Amino acid sequence: MPKQESKATRSDPGRAVAFSDAIIAIVITLLVLDLRPPEAEPGELLTALLGEWPTYLAYAASYTYLAVIWLNHKAAFTRIGEMDRGLQWANLGILATLALVPWPTAVIAETARTGNLEDEKVAVALYAIVGALLCMSFLVFFSHLARHPDLTKEEVDDSYFARERPRALIGVVLYLAAGVAGVLIHPLVASVIFLLLPAFYGLTSHGFDQRPAFLGGGDSDNSGGDGAPKGG
Amino acid sequence: MPKQESKATRSDPGRAVAFSDAIIAIVITLLVLDLRPPEAEPGELLTALLGEWPTYLAYAASYTYLAVIWLNHKAAFTRIGEMDRGLQWANLGILATLALVPWPTAVIAETARTGNLEDEKVAVALYAIVGALLCMSFLVFFSHLARHPDLTKEEVDDSYFARERPRALIGVVLYLAAGVAGVLIHPLVASVIFLLLPAFYGLTSHGFDQRPAFLGGGDSDNSGGDGAPKGG
Amino acid sequence: MPKQESKATRSDPGRAVAFSDAIIAIVITLLVLDLRPPEAEPGELLTALLGEWPTYLAYAASYTYLAVIWLNHKAAFTRIGEMDRGLQWANLGILATLALVPWPTAVIAETARTGNLEDEKVAVALYAIVGALLCMSFLVFFSHLARHPDLTKEEVDDSYFARERPRALIGVVLYLAAGVAGVLIHPLVASVIFLLLPAFYGLTSHGFDQRPAFLGGGDSDNSGGDGAPKGG
Amino acid sequence: MPKQESKATRSDPGRAVAFSDAIIAIVITLLVLDLRPPEAEPGELLTALLGEWPTYLAYAASYTYLAVIWLNHKAAFTRIGEMDRGLQWANLGILATLALVPWPTAVIAETARTGNLEDEKVAVALYAIVGALLCMSFLVFFSHLARHPDLTKEEVDDSYFARERPRALIGVVLYLAAGVAGVLIHPLVASVIFLLLPAFYGLTSHGFDQRPAFLGGGDSDNSGGDGAPKGG
Repeated sequence: MPKQESKATRSDPGRAVAFSDAIIAIVITLLVLDLRPPEAEPGELLTALLGEWPTYLAYAASYTYLAVIWLNHKAAFTRIGEMDRGLQWANLGILATLALVPWPTAVIAETARTGNLEDEKVAVALYAIVGALLCMSFLVFFSHLARHPDLTKEEVDDSYFARERPRALIGVVLYLAAGVAGVLIHPLVASVIFLLLPAFYGLTSHGFDQRPAFLGGGDSDNSGGDGAPKGG
Repeated sequence: MPKQESKATRSDPGRAVAFSDAIIAIVITLLVLDLRPPEAEPGELLTALLGEWPTYLAYAASYTYLAVIWLNHKAAFTRIGEMDRGLQWANLGILATLALVPWPTAVIAETARTGNLEDEKVAVALYAIVGALLCMSFLVFFSHLARHPDLTKEEVDDSYFARERPRALIGVVLYLAAGVAGVLIHPLVASVIFLLLPAFYGLTSHGFDQRPAFLGGGDSDNSGGDGAPKGG
Repeated sequence: MPKQESKATRSDPGRAVAFSDAIIAIVITLLVLDLRPPEAEPGELLTALLGEWPTYLAYAASYTYLAVIWLNHKAAFTRIGEMDRGLQWANLGILATLALVPWPTAVIAETARTGNLEDEKVAVALYAIVGALLCMSFLVFFSHLARHPDLTKEEVDDSYFARERPRALIGVVLYLAAGVAGVLIHPLVASVIFLLLPAFYGLTSHGFDQRPAFLGGGDSDNSGGDGAPKGG
Repeated sequence: MPKQESKATRSDPGRAVAFSDAIIAIVITLLVLDLRPPEAEPGELLTALLGEWPTYLAYAASYTYLAVIWLNHKAAFTRIGEMDRGLQWANLGILATLALVPWPTAVIAETARTGNLEDEKVAVALYAIVGALLCMSFLVFFSHLARHPDLTKEEVDDSYFARERPRALIGVVLYLAAGVAGVLIHPLVASVIFLLLPAFYGLTSHGFDQRPAFLGGGDSDNSGGDGAPKGG
């Protein structure tokens, strides 16, 4: 019974979902650690706080980015029935790269504060690389699911994850393009794209899928988290 | 079947609740990171520890504030059956603003230590703005639920969340008023209001609703967290 | 129906348990943040690492203490069927004081490094106060449960939590006594008691209750976490 | 009825699993705290970032290590039906040692930056000790389960955990050998072994067991996390 044998190498996604949620929650909260009382001379607090505006912008951008990633992660797992070894590592790859996001965020905020143009270019290039890596880790994740339709729930269209791949690939390209534009033209160009990209992904997120055709009665009754019934 | 179609864009609140709990738990614990061994000359530890009293007060105030927010968040989700895209973002907005709370808390504690009156005014104004933003994010959240009664559980009175809005709006006004009073009169006035406001919300919290009329048998049997059965 | 009315003010302990677990997990992990690469001259790393022994001891002691607290917390909630407002705040009180533990731990480690006797006395006194506050918060928690036997599961002996109170009260007394001994005799006396107390509580923990008489078939079948069935 | 009595001292692994997941998620995320904007002269950011390569390597190695530990932890708990006091402490021992991992990781990264050979030897020796301790804590955990087959689920082969012990023991030996080689030969030798060991454990992980013989229908239907039904 090959089916039976293959099933023995699988596991329920419950713990992977809980583990991912914890990591994303921690990473999204680490962003706020950069918001500290500024070192200022007595009476200069207001000036110092206003001078920290790049940090506030960076917080808003990275928070939105990670929120969108969480929604996409949630949307994907709503459709996953079981996980094999490859899918576990693909998910761990997503978590490893998203945990990096606060780092280039802090580097951009730091260079915006010191104001050296060369450093600002390096900073946006670093952010672009991390952003592209994150999209690439989603590409690997979606590709694995597209190649293993038996991991998805029965009621999910087999081509669903194959059709998710282009969105991830576009992200890789756009982040790299933003980085190149930031270095060749001006870091601000890259920063604007970094702010727009999560908005784009947020608006096109399949977290709340409008296509009931391949979901039947909707995901409202099969996304119950840890104890989600396996399709069929 | 419009109902069916609309349901396909919805999802179970299970993962949103777990994600929110993790973020609130991390934020409430970050407060304690400001409690560090003080830098003191040998033999001066006691003096240094006693001199840190504004930090202790700030810890107590912000912990209470976040605890009340968690209870209110819990109370709201007890009544939510499913989430749509707007409600997910409204919830992410609450999480983004509450994650800011440790920051003005640390700024107030820092200025209380250095003792510059101008800086203290700036610090209470910052706290007031963050406090008002947090109440505003709850106002958006409650308004979305009031406009979409189909997201709440069947046994919940349709006007429940409409009636929650004034409490959030009063919070916005009171935090802003406290900030203005802190700047125009004295920062201590603002600090006292900041300490009293969470107490007010704690006492009027609907986490443990005393009005069984529109809850039937109470929330004790329908708040089972992730796997909570959807009303009806 | 007074029973019905009172039930409407209650809620399932599921989210409180998950929230507590997250906070305790974060606090226990914050301890490790004090283990950093020591600042040492080139070639002096070994000496510097060995010189950090008070930090290692403090890590071991506080980790054990928090682990025991988690086991006791788990043991208590295994017996709780529903929570009212008072019990929620009693639990939040436990979490607020246990979140303080890394702070006096770091202060003790810091003074052990600098070696000023007066400072060491202050440090053990601070640890004693926090330890006593934590036991006191458990005393409040157990007392509330003893006064409200309807909050416990039906199969739990009504006197269970009343009989838990003396253990908490002994903790308050012993921590305060250790602090006094540390100040009047020598800080080392206090430190030894701080190391022994968690061991005592660990060994007498009711997390794995040996008295099946008032538990019937044991807690193995009614401690299923969030979705635990309410007794009866 | 000795069976009944012994059961009263047991508890469901649900909360232990959730608590472990939270701690591992926090520890794996703490690694990223070492990735900070480097202190660099204006215009020197690129050089400074490239100079941090040991930190990036250390992040990758420790992340992989902790990911493998999480997969092994998950694989073990899939087979555990209930926990007794000894197993709770064995699990807390695993968590205590894995929480240490970011510390020697940071020490190695720090010494790689300063480049003193003596310090590098001390750093790899420290990493080797922590790695060996972690394998040893798994050895204790597996041994406890091997001695108490009644704690495992009914469908799990009684000799399963006995056969897991050699893998843990090999880890203890290999980490210590790597440390000795790092001190006697060159720290790089140790670093290479540290990078290879998690890969070895990842590849041989039983998280996705290929031997259906002693698992019957596979673990896909009995690893439902917190609410997992106890075998039989």
